[in-house]
Amino acid sequence: MKVHTVGGYNEVGKNMTAIEVNGEIVIIDMGADMETVIEYEEEMETLSTKEAIEAGAVPDDSDIHDRKDDVVAIVISHGHLDHTLAVPKLAKVYDCPIYATPFTKKIVERIIKDDDARVNNGVRTLKIGETTTLSDHFELEFVKITHSIPHTPLTVLHTSDGTAVYSCDFKLDEEPTLGNKPDYERIRELGDEGVKAYIADSTRTDQKGRTKSEHETAIELRSIINRAYEDNEGVIVTTFSSHIARLNNILDANDGRRKVAFIGRSLKEYTQSAQELDLIDLSNVEVLSYYNEVEDFLRRASKEKGDWLIVCTGNQGEPNAVLSRIARGEYNYHIDEKDRVIFSSSTIPAPVNEANRYKVEKLLRERGTQVEVDVHSHGHGMREDQRDMIRLLEPEHIVPAHGGTEKLAATASLAIDEGYVLEQNVHISQNGNIVNLDRPA
Amino acid sequence: MKVHTVGGYNEVGKNMTAIEVNGEIVIIDMGADMETVIEYEEEMETLSTKEAIEAGAVPDDSDIHDRKDDVVAIVISHGHLDHTLAVPKLAKVYDCPIYATPFTKKIVERIIKDDDARVNNGVRTLKIGETTTLSDHFELEFVKITHSIPHTPLTVLHTSDGTAVYSCDFKLDEEPTLGNKPDYERIRELGDEGVKAYIADSTRTDQKGRTKSEHETAIELRSIINRAYEDNEGVIVTTFSSHIARLNNILDANDGRRKVAFIGRSLKEYTQSAQELDLIDLSNVEVLSYYNEVEDFLRRASKEKGDWLIVCTGNQGEPNAVLSRIARGEYNYHIDEKDRVIFSSSTIPAPVNEANRYKVEKLLRERGTQVEVDVHSHGHGMREDQRDMIRLLEPEHIVPAHGGTEKLAATASLAIDEGYVLEQNVHISQNGNIVNLDRPA
Amino acid sequence: MKVHTVGGYNEVGKNMTAIEVNGEIVIIDMGADMETVIEYEEEMETLSTKEAIEAGAVPDDSDIHDRKDDVVAIVISHGHLDHTLAVPKLAKVYDCPIYATPFTKKIVERIIKDDDARVNNGVRTLKIGETTTLSDHFELEFVKITHSIPHTPLTVLHTSDGTAVYSCDFKLDEEPTLGNKPDYERIRELGDEGVKAYIADSTRTDQKGRTKSEHETAIELRSIINRAYEDNEGVIVTTFSSHIARLNNILDANDGRRKVAFIGRSLKEYTQSAQELDLIDLSNVEVLSYYNEVEDFLRRASKEKGDWLIVCTGNQGEPNAVLSRIARGEYNYHIDEKDRVIFSSSTIPAPVNEANRYKVEKLLRERGTQVEVDVHSHGHGMREDQRDMIRLLEPEHIVPAHGGTEKLAATASLAIDEGYVLEQNVHISQNGNIVNLDRPA
Amino acid sequence: MKVHTVGGYNEVGKNMTAIEVNGEIVIIDMGADMETVIEYEEEMETLSTKEAIEAGAVPDDSDIHDRKDDVVAIVISHGHLDHTLAVPKLAKVYDCPIYATPFTKKIVERIIKDDDARVNNGVRTLKIGETTTLSDHFELEFVKITHSIPHTPLTVLHTSDGTAVYSCDFKLDEEPTLGNKPDYERIRELGDEGVKAYIADSTRTDQKGRTKSEHETAIELRSIINRAYEDNEGVIVTTFSSHIARLNNILDANDGRRKVAFIGRSLKEYTQSAQELDLIDLSNVEVLSYYNEVEDFLRRASKEKGDWLIVCTGNQGEPNAVLSRIARGEYNYHIDEKDRVIFSSSTIPAPVNEANRYKVEKLLRERGTQVEVDVHSHGHGMREDQRDMIRLLEPEHIVPAHGGTEKLAATASLAIDEGYVLEQNVHISQNGNIVNLDRPA
Repeated sequence: MKVHTVGGYNEVGKNMTAIEVNGEIVIIDMGADMETVIEYEEEMETLSTKEAIEAGAVPDDSDIHDRKDDVVAIVISHGHLDHTLAVPKLAKVYDCPIYATPFTKKIVERIIKDDDARVNNGVRTLKIGETTTLSDHFELEFVKITHSIPHTPLTVLHTSDGTAVYSCDFKLDEEPTLGNKPDYERIRELGDEGVKAYIADSTRTDQKGRTKSEHETAIELRSIINRAYEDNEGVIVTTFSSHIARLNNILDANDGRRKVAFIGRSLKEYTQSAQELDLIDLSNVEVLSYYNEVEDFLRRASKEKGDWLIVCTGNQGEPNAVLSRIARGEYNYHIDEKDRVIFSSSTIPAPVNEANRYKVEKLLRERGTQVEVDVHSHGHGMREDQRDMIRLLEPEHIVPAHGGTEKLAATASLAIDEGYVLEQNVHISQNGNIVNLDRPA
Repeated sequence: MKVHTVGGYNEVGKNMTAIEVNGEIVIIDMGADMETVIEYEEEMETLSTKEAIEAGAVPDDSDIHDRKDDVVAIVISHGHLDHTLAVPKLAKVYDCPIYATPFTKKIVERIIKDDDARVNNGVRTLKIGETTTLSDHFELEFVKITHSIPHTPLTVLHTSDGTAVYSCDFKLDEEPTLGNKPDYERIRELGDEGVKAYIADSTRTDQKGRTKSEHETAIELRSIINRAYEDNEGVIVTTFSSHIARLNNILDANDGRRKVAFIGRSLKEYTQSAQELDLIDLSNVEVLSYYNEVEDFLRRASKEKGDWLIVCTGNQGEPNAVLSRIARGEYNYHIDEKDRVIFSSSTIPAPVNEANRYKVEKLLRERGTQVEVDVHSHGHGMREDQRDMIRLLEPEHIVPAHGGTEKLAATASLAIDEGYVLEQNVHISQNGNIVNLDRPA
Repeated sequence: MKVHTVGGYNEVGKNMTAIEVNGEIVIIDMGADMETVIEYEEEMETLSTKEAIEAGAVPDDSDIHDRKDDVVAIVISHGHLDHTLAVPKLAKVYDCPIYATPFTKKIVERIIKDDDARVNNGVRTLKIGETTTLSDHFELEFVKITHSIPHTPLTVLHTSDGTAVYSCDFKLDEEPTLGNKPDYERIRELGDEGVKAYIADSTRTDQKGRTKSEHETAIELRSIINRAYEDNEGVIVTTFSSHIARLNNILDANDGRRKVAFIGRSLKEYTQSAQELDLIDLSNVEVLSYYNEVEDFLRRASKEKGDWLIVCTGNQGEPNAVLSRIARGEYNYHIDEKDRVIFSSSTIPAPVNEANRYKVEKLLRERGTQVEVDVHSHGHGMREDQRDMIRLLEPEHIVPAHGGTEKLAATASLAIDEGYVLEQNVHISQNGNIVNLDRPA
Repeated sequence: MKVHTVGGYNEVGKNMTAIEVNGEIVIIDMGADMETVIEYEEEMETLSTKEAIEAGAVPDDSDIHDRKDDVVAIVISHGHLDHTLAVPKLAKVYDCPIYATPFTKKIVERIIKDDDARVNNGVRTLKIGETTTLSDHFELEFVKITHSIPHTPLTVLHTSDGTAVYSCDFKLDEEPTLGNKPDYERIRELGDEGVKAYIADSTRTDQKGRTKSEHETAIELRSIINRAYEDNEGVIVTTFSSHIARLNNILDANDGRRKVAFIGRSLKEYTQSAQELDLIDLSNVEVLSYYNEVEDFLRRASKEKGDWLIVCTGNQGEPNAVLSRIARGEYNYHIDEKDRVIFSSSTIPAPVNEANRYKVEKLLRERGTQVEVDVHSHGHGMREDQRDMIRLLEPEHIVPAHGGTEKLAATASLAIDEGYVLEQNVHISQNGNIVNLDRPA
């Protein structure tokens, strides 16, 4: 078995990994580097594949590309853009289907459509808990795990040369608020059956402790919303549009007490996809995205703030998002010390985001608005979560993924702590490398 | 009204404040500086009052002492040692009763007994939600608030010169696991009636955001304990002995699945006091403290680890506590990679504690034991909690307390943000000063 | 004596303090809030005084303004914009002269001219080491001290009610590279004669230790430049245009080995003023600022990089500065791994600056350029420097200045450490307050 | 060529590396893990080799031990204990000489004597700038580099299979105060001739920027000492006993103005060795180490503080060192606010050291003594220094050393930045591994 570490091994972003067995290759994920994408903004869609690779926006897949006829399947693990957004640029050259969970499928299809790309691979669905045959040498299984977007599995490839487990992205949430907790029984069973390669999400393994449960964020949200409602304040919440569990928690915190509006294009897109799969109930939510309808609504709502819970885009301070426009006074929605704005998110640590967020928060605070930040739990497990996973899977080999060299090293260091040996059965790789697991140490 | 800022205005520790109205004085709290106490260890009890003051272990109350006949009451806000441990050294000189909630009363009485001090003031109880008359000019009311030890009220003094509210220590926990959430209605009512002075807990106001709920820690505890039980691991938890809510959460996480032992002198003392007040049910808990019984028990339990949940002292890495002894192998309780040790606490940030904790954790990890740290929520509110409190109380004057100058300044900075003006209606004081609220600015 | 703390007591910026004795008032400094100025960019000059105050860009001097006839002098301590840039907005209303050192005078006059303001106060010069009479009750003395712009004195007001010493901005540099070290003898003499009020620069008193000498930066600069010259690399240095000592250190590091160019408008302005006062020798420096001449020069220099040492604007990553344009490839000056870019500066900690700097550095590093950062020593003393100053002056009262409440509190905390008492002889103030030193504690 | 990464690849400490070519092996360094040594204290000398290995105090050399007849030489790069202290435990089994520079030789011989070990290898000296033949396949060259102890070379092994360069420990000090700056010409020449393996000091490559010059510390020392002398204060300096350049800088800062005493056993040992090699002139220094003579001296000096500059042991707060005893008042040397204590060192980041240092500083500050800390420059280069080295050597392979996995990864990340590829020509290893440079990638 060989692990092609195509993208996401020098950075948090543009994830792409490929597993090769007996000459057959399965690709997992085709993501974009979001910091680069933000720099390019709208222009992204106009870039050719070559330009997008050179810009560093999508993985350089030349190693796999040279062997494109050996690729039997593309698996997209989940819908986050650092795992999906390169599909329009990279997938079409491979003459094979794309596999994904139902929610992920909807996202991938929208991305393809938005890019106006001719991607004819077709997206087949596999549900969590199910297994399907990809080729002579590969079977794909999706095992229940938890993350911050629906329908994220632990991706398992059963091959004629052993099992590969890919955990990007995962957390171990014992009390998720949407869907079940991880299927520890099956995970342990995989370990008992034998795992040859574990490709390990390293995004936050460099932080000690554990990632807190989404249930905890639910408590924080309803605590703050209760406090605001008691004072009859105007309330605006902003969060990641794809975080359907969070949106449900916001609705739960509201508990029917106020009318709810979801405002912004991406909120509309993601929640409508989620509704189609019964992941959210929008029947009592006003969903708005066009500029004029937003403006009309906000003018109206400004006069009856105590009646509304507003959820909108702009958690990263994006200058064109709804929250930034409200903060700058572009709509007739007036905020002051009787309003509370809740950032149910963390700021992605790129300086441009931090500057944007700072500006929005500053505008809000200057008007006396109470600003609540980091009402959030992360989607990636931390050091002790990863240790649990390693102890459950007991893999022969560990390939840290989803981070720069230092982050990969943190997972390697944990593995060493657990008895693994560098270059022998734990492998720090980089973009473009191939880790040959059968090579003698 | 004058606020005597006797102790806890140059440090986090040795809290003591006095409110003076019309020549009458009420003292709130008589606490010790815990870092100094740790340095002196056992010796503490042998120090005279004068020596304890000079060592910096207890507040220098000379300003009040000179007017001891004017003191009409001592109120002890709650049972933590930085609010109570100076009682044996300081209380006896004042010819007046001590007031406290029932759980606090038990602690104060034990402290007096342990110190072998002749303190004849007598401790009267006042329950949370009740009011009592202290003197001609003072009424005492205890209002429901939340903290990390049972029976901690918001201490309210209704005086002939207006109301003083003392919030050391508090958090705003919307979902406490033992007792009710803060009585916002009454707090807001106090604000509406008019608060002249707000003495504000500043321990963590220098940190942005909010303190998480005890409910969140309960989730974290049961998540980790579930994971350990699934793997049939030995489980040891250590936490603050006075944190009865936490101990209940540990019992809840266990949910009757294993037998439970509480081991260590302070655990025994605090939990027995709590049981007498129906704050915890120890009927299914084996409580141990003598060396021999602990040794016997641990030898036995070592052979049936899967049957036991062990809760013990030592969360700060104290060299003589049970956990440190286990880690050093002093008992016949063998730990290895099939054990999990949970620190349901934070390390109090004194270098000696940090060194002690480091040693214990290192010993545990060297044996392969999975160590879980910071499974904890703090007892003090953070910046946004304090902002809520200020907005509810709308006090005339704010006197930040419970911290060094920089911490007091953080609360002052928040007050300025909320429209207060330094030296006019927000007052950064220091130990030994008197803040005269009636002095023209 | 009263100290009017007009600006710079809630932030690092827009410094303005006034000393009142016997009904006469002397203003020290009229600075701008640079973060706000950066937001407003060019627009700043078009703002009216009222608008500039409301925007928070300049101090709100209404308290002094109401008593404008009592103002006998305006002293500008030094040329940095947070001490000078409000002059065009605020000075004209006061019918009195401005006093400044010669270099500061040039800067103030240029600022007035740039703003197109009708400021007719006139700027009188007082040299360091000299004293002049301002009015019946005030004498002004400038004492030698060190900072990061030439001609910065310790500002001393001898009044009929005692001496006021203003140390914003200062460091204690035992080995400055331009001018002499602080005049400790005179400073100690001031202490011996008696100082009533010490207005204390608190910008960095919250950091422990001492600020390093400019001599150390000189060593770092010549070390890096030596290494680059040995490898025959292209070298670009960017620094603060007003930091004439630094520019001299860059010339010294070059030591005549290469031709030198100074590029950028502000570099030209400051260095020409400095040359007129014999503070720098530009006879062997090519000074360029117009776009066309810069473009021509850079096209030419690009072909003979080994011959040039380029010093240019852009140390904060300002998008329109020369360095940013070079990094974006807007000039025909090609950089790659054979170039070294030296940021002889620190990034002013505003998120927009940090984002700008990040972008420039990223562009440079992507081309393989070796980027050297923080080759810099600060202009403000740290905790031990301030302690030295307090021990030398032994002032009756300390008024921390030049920072938000937390920074002022750090100086207050140091003063307490040295035996001062809050509200008695150390006073944490805020913008708009008046500290009355004669009021009984 | 194979690189045996024996010790110092999982931690900062117990450094040991071996280079194998054509069946011959040369060992470089035999160091101890200082944190473990501190734990064991005096006991260390009583441990057998096996016990010392099991305790983690010295490297586990079993891999090399099995081939002990192939070892042709042991090279000790410099005198620091993490490179030398394992010699008494490990060297004797190898039937070959030890090579070291003259100062290092003296240290190694003293360590052997102190341990009472029978090490009969014999220590041969090689001066910096010289080359010697070790065996058929190995030549050893010591090239001028800079570090914080005298006679530290860049260790170069010219072998029949190419050149190996070992840089543990190094900084690039352009202006060292004792000895010359690095021999860049020779280093570049090595690069031009071809370097097969570069074993790279990674202790501080995880920090951006450059390590400051010892010349800068000299400036800081004389600045503080000048300030103290001007005030006629008592002055105590503590630093690393082996840091002869620093001790010289202290003498230079004194400049004959006061009498000087060096107090403490390790200070005596190191400085006497240094004097024998003309690295320091002790003719005007009183050197004291026995308890009685120290006590007598300090009693006397306490009465004439203005006449003395005292340099003593205790920079890490070691409880038994001279400074700690002074702070605790064990000698008749009284300190107060007229004293200044200078820590010309950094605290080695082990919690026990930090707690010790904290205690000493607290005792000193409580008496009003002005405490100056971190008057120090580190001995290890930072990221840009390492980048310079890589660009000079242009090695075929890089093996990061001297740190845990995360630190090694930081150097690897830098190497990737410079065009290297993981597992191909940059190798993150761990203790006990062998990096085979000739194995196909």
